[in-house]
Amino acid sequence: MSTFGTLFRVTTFGESHCAGVGCIVDGVPPLMALTEADIQPQLSRRRPGQSALTTKRDEKDLVRIMSGTEHGVTLGTPIGLTVPNEDMRPGDYGSMSDIPRPSHADYTYQYKYGTKTSSGGGRASARETIGRVAAGAIAEKFLRLRYGVEIVAWVSSIGDIEMKEDVVDTITRERVDSHPTRCPDAAVADQMTALVQECRNAEDSVGGVVSCVIRNSPVGLGEPCFDKLQATLAHAMMSIPATKGFEIGSGFRGTTQRGSAHNDMFVRKGDRLGTVTNNSGGVQGGISNGEPIVLRVAFKPPATIGKEQATVTYDGTSAVLAAKGRHDPCVVPRAIPIVEAMAALALAE
Amino acid sequence: MSTFGTLFRVTTFGESHCAGVGCIVDGVPPLMALTEADIQPQLSRRRPGQSALTTKRDEKDLVRIMSGTEHGVTLGTPIGLTVPNEDMRPGDYGSMSDIPRPSHADYTYQYKYGTKTSSGGGRASARETIGRVAAGAIAEKFLRLRYGVEIVAWVSSIGDIEMKEDVVDTITRERVDSHPTRCPDAAVADQMTALVQECRNAEDSVGGVVSCVIRNSPVGLGEPCFDKLQATLAHAMMSIPATKGFEIGSGFRGTTQRGSAHNDMFVRKGDRLGTVTNNSGGVQGGISNGEPIVLRVAFKPPATIGKEQATVTYDGTSAVLAAKGRHDPCVVPRAIPIVEAMAALALAE
Amino acid sequence: MSTFGTLFRVTTFGESHCAGVGCIVDGVPPLMALTEADIQPQLSRRRPGQSALTTKRDEKDLVRIMSGTEHGVTLGTPIGLTVPNEDMRPGDYGSMSDIPRPSHADYTYQYKYGTKTSSGGGRASARETIGRVAAGAIAEKFLRLRYGVEIVAWVSSIGDIEMKEDVVDTITRERVDSHPTRCPDAAVADQMTALVQECRNAEDSVGGVVSCVIRNSPVGLGEPCFDKLQATLAHAMMSIPATKGFEIGSGFRGTTQRGSAHNDMFVRKGDRLGTVTNNSGGVQGGISNGEPIVLRVAFKPPATIGKEQATVTYDGTSAVLAAKGRHDPCVVPRAIPIVEAMAALALAE
Amino acid sequence: MSTFGTLFRVTTFGESHCAGVGCIVDGVPPLMALTEADIQPQLSRRRPGQSALTTKRDEKDLVRIMSGTEHGVTLGTPIGLTVPNEDMRPGDYGSMSDIPRPSHADYTYQYKYGTKTSSGGGRASARETIGRVAAGAIAEKFLRLRYGVEIVAWVSSIGDIEMKEDVVDTITRERVDSHPTRCPDAAVADQMTALVQECRNAEDSVGGVVSCVIRNSPVGLGEPCFDKLQATLAHAMMSIPATKGFEIGSGFRGTTQRGSAHNDMFVRKGDRLGTVTNNSGGVQGGISNGEPIVLRVAFKPPATIGKEQATVTYDGTSAVLAAKGRHDPCVVPRAIPIVEAMAALALAE
Repeated sequence: MSTFGTLFRVTTFGESHCAGVGCIVDGVPPLMALTEADIQPQLSRRRPGQSALTTKRDEKDLVRIMSGTEHGVTLGTPIGLTVPNEDMRPGDYGSMSDIPRPSHADYTYQYKYGTKTSSGGGRASARETIGRVAAGAIAEKFLRLRYGVEIVAWVSSIGDIEMKEDVVDTITRERVDSHPTRCPDAAVADQMTALVQECRNAEDSVGGVVSCVIRNSPVGLGEPCFDKLQATLAHAMMSIPATKGFEIGSGFRGTTQRGSAHNDMFVRKGDRLGTVTNNSGGVQGGISNGEPIVLRVAFKPPATIGKEQATVTYDGTSAVLAAKGRHDPCVVPRAIPIVEAMAALALAE
Repeated sequence: MSTFGTLFRVTTFGESHCAGVGCIVDGVPPLMALTEADIQPQLSRRRPGQSALTTKRDEKDLVRIMSGTEHGVTLGTPIGLTVPNEDMRPGDYGSMSDIPRPSHADYTYQYKYGTKTSSGGGRASARETIGRVAAGAIAEKFLRLRYGVEIVAWVSSIGDIEMKEDVVDTITRERVDSHPTRCPDAAVADQMTALVQECRNAEDSVGGVVSCVIRNSPVGLGEPCFDKLQATLAHAMMSIPATKGFEIGSGFRGTTQRGSAHNDMFVRKGDRLGTVTNNSGGVQGGISNGEPIVLRVAFKPPATIGKEQATVTYDGTSAVLAAKGRHDPCVVPRAIPIVEAMAALALAE
Repeated sequence: MSTFGTLFRVTTFGESHCAGVGCIVDGVPPLMALTEADIQPQLSRRRPGQSALTTKRDEKDLVRIMSGTEHGVTLGTPIGLTVPNEDMRPGDYGSMSDIPRPSHADYTYQYKYGTKTSSGGGRASARETIGRVAAGAIAEKFLRLRYGVEIVAWVSSIGDIEMKEDVVDTITRERVDSHPTRCPDAAVADQMTALVQECRNAEDSVGGVVSCVIRNSPVGLGEPCFDKLQATLAHAMMSIPATKGFEIGSGFRGTTQRGSAHNDMFVRKGDRLGTVTNNSGGVQGGISNGEPIVLRVAFKPPATIGKEQATVTYDGTSAVLAAKGRHDPCVVPRAIPIVEAMAALALAE
Repeated sequence: MSTFGTLFRVTTFGESHCAGVGCIVDGVPPLMALTEADIQPQLSRRRPGQSALTTKRDEKDLVRIMSGTEHGVTLGTPIGLTVPNEDMRPGDYGSMSDIPRPSHADYTYQYKYGTKTSSGGGRASARETIGRVAAGAIAEKFLRLRYGVEIVAWVSSIGDIEMKEDVVDTITRERVDSHPTRCPDAAVADQMTALVQECRNAEDSVGGVVSCVIRNSPVGLGEPCFDKLQATLAHAMMSIPATKGFEIGSGFRGTTQRGSAHNDMFVRKGDRLGTVTNNSGGVQGGISNGEPIVLRVAFKPPATIGKEQATVTYDGTSAVLAAKGRHDPCVVPRAIPIVEAMAALALAE
């Protein structure tokens, strides 16, 4: 279903070429200042057409609060949010109607539902993420006001170009946005730009990794059993289109370590115990321990490419697909606000 | 909460040193043959004391079906399962009552609940996983009878010793169990044994990676938005104690590829379309496509080690902890049936 | 929360004086014909200003499908629905800002949320029910197309004027709508009209009972334990504003009978067993048995009345309240499509 | 499914003739004193064989806490509870295997599941309620310790013999239990006893009404929309076997009143506003207002009777059923602890 969360809950609607997209956010506490200005910045960071690196689909993505506030303050009632679709060009996709795009949702949607939108992605379109980003902005404001939580995501690799610097304690959104790739290491970022441009020129695409830190998380979030905090975070992140992997703290690298090296020794930090190292990534026993929550999300290369692909039609006949239109050669820069939104929603739920 | 799943739902209870552990499995279809003999084998694969590689805690872990069947056939009603705890030795943990184990759940549990079992792990104990394995055995039988689903997990790395062979299409549980490490490559497995023994001798521990394949998955499982199949699988796997990472298909490695190389070209396979490669790991657009579902789960080194650790007490005083007792130097061999169980529960839900 | 249902699920938003109200309906099967014309009739039956009997607030309540359909056919994705608020007159309520209306939600909302809309009802407004009615129209269409289900509600009493005729097998919406009171017995309906007019003239209000029949329900709906069909129906109905009671089948009257008289004897009806009588109201053991599901819902007299009431302000000072504005002296005629909607949602969930 | 509640959640298992029945209670706060002695009294009030008025099935119904406590104090982890079945006599039901009992669950279960227990009721047996009563005792203790909540149910009518006295403010369980019928008016209770005996002698049965008051409810329980407190209470009560109706406050009687008479005028009561009358039954706008929550539940006459009934077999052949065995001529006395349990669970959820 299209619902995430139990006590702080978002339900989304909308596909690529309908009248609009949006969501209902339920469980927002009353008496919190909230206007469109709290939500729009993250939507604008997500929207297409921001730079030469992304798809040229042009959308303003202006959000409207339909309910749940009065005089700029929340009422404790569900917040309805809508964003109109503007740049709909179903015609762009006509040539793909007989050939399911390899590694895209076309085939599985057709199989499961017996139908799909005439216009390609439908619910699998990146536009589905608008509702998430809008809801996440509300969750994030709540977490920031109540606990001082800070959530910052950044691009840590594109293709095999990887950033090495540890920026967990210092990274800010301003620094992330200082480069179109949203990699905070300028030298590495320039290499990434070159790689993305190369892929665009080749009508190809490339994947990448988004890292994210959640600072000032309250201690005690998460449930001991099935709803461990890392499980909820993994669920949230792996629900973003095009994700293939998730790590928290030491992740896969941690499997190669000895316990004596991997264990995070305790030390007093103010009124709580903290840890000297943070291989746990802020979560121990499924429950947040107050250290920064650090996670990484793997995004595969976008499936829709202009380059020719030898595949088959829905009925199994050999065919060559070259998807014309406005494709994103790399999604990770625009994925930044989505990862931040899902982090906020996972914490708030 | 201690519940997983919507239509096929398990709720577990029990901690390390109470009267017993168990679960209720709701949503099992009626008229399926089911006795304890369907459940016990996976519990026995999970139980401690199986080999020199694991903890010496000795438990038979005999399961009893309390309800939901009659004459060996399911009724469609909830199935209550109980497993008594036998080898309870709270005394073993006495020395740790003042010092939270680094990277274990002691501190976060104490903070969140204001209490914890006198005996260490409590709900964070590996015994909590018994209910999952029992429920998973039922889910797996249902999936096998209804769809022919086969689920096999194996150890693909311990520490930095990694198995290279691709066994996705051929691996069986018999082959997995042919070596105590549950790594199906005998030469690599011997190296792993040596490494685990070395850690045990050093009163230290080491992590590893469990791989898992789900063959014959029906096409169409998973929901387009928040409950994509990879999200549900990630949630399931990251809820297993000691997990730090999750990958499906190409995982983090896939982020370095071009779309033209990563995309899985379609080809006719019987009455459905299949793919030539399987970088998608059996899931496209969040929905299973009929190819083998392939995933990997990272387990950190166990936190409880005999080796001395310089840490602090609950009140922040410097202390040295050397956890006496029966510790597992490496959990991945015993994690095999747990990963299989969570895979079955994620598919059945 | 503002969500109802598990597999067929509606989430609503909106209060009396925000930009609009609406809902998201998730779980609607794909390939079902659906346009605004399927939804608008029930909204129009619910809207204020239909007759001299109801509130004079004037709203067109025109619904727009935002997503989930293409070319008039469902996609299997969430259906977003919006209805703008037009006739907002916050000024009408100014005088009530210090005095909570007796038996209304003002006090409990203020206590629970620490705020309320400046305009009276807020989320407790009857406008909240628009989303339910819209979602219910979709659920009803699905049930009608799939199973031939017919749902008809009617007014069976207002005040102490009660209709006696048994219309369970024959009643139609056309007959219900043939009189403004929506009581299908014309003579009784005229008495009801007189009573409502008398209450309106006295600036007072009066309650009533809505009866509802669900014909052609499939056999087997409902769960044995906590989610018995009568429990889900009771939940659905008692969530409608102003409800005080629920009955299914023989209801409270059945408590006075002997088992030998109350039991519904079985008889063959086509390919299933049916019953001679229907004291069970179509549900046995919590599961539908194929007979008509018959239920009754009690609505109290509306709390907002123009007549003077001796009460106290929020801070406990004695005060006299005479609520000016456009009040409904009796809600049951307009409650008809709401009861029908909740019946459809309870069956579809 | 067999689960009730979100934050305080019970899942039950067990049918009439399996090894045992029980439940898992999740969400119980840590550090609450809890032993079997807190749970057993309500189970003993529910168990059969208490008096000449009830079924002669003889069960001790001794509960065991399997998990979730240590040294008599809760840990915050799920509490597993089991109660063995002892007096199983499948043979008693042999004669009914071909004939579904009129107005019982036999036919609908067989239709829905394609099977049923050989022993009649299965999951529809009254033994299913043991898990509810056990869980309710825990919920009730939590509510009493945290808020001083008092829950008392009593029999207010059997057949057409009705008790008139208003005991909402004063009733205690001791007074309720002072008579085997659990009607606190001794003279009326004696008439009830005579009626029940008369029904027993005639191998017939009779229904009744259980009233219940919840005193000292905190203000603010319940959600504005679908989960209004009266909706959750109705759901809880209508999930009890044999229920046909639910009322809160003025109930169906309130529909005949004018708003000016029905409205509950506010008055200052300590640090909150209270009401002079309580037609609302403690709930306004779906949210508790601090006044006593007063509700009534209708129970039909038990379906299983010894008297001959002219009905048909599963395949539609005419047959006469006379159910031999140990039947309850009237369930309302034993329903008292079940109603109390469901009230506690609905409040705690």
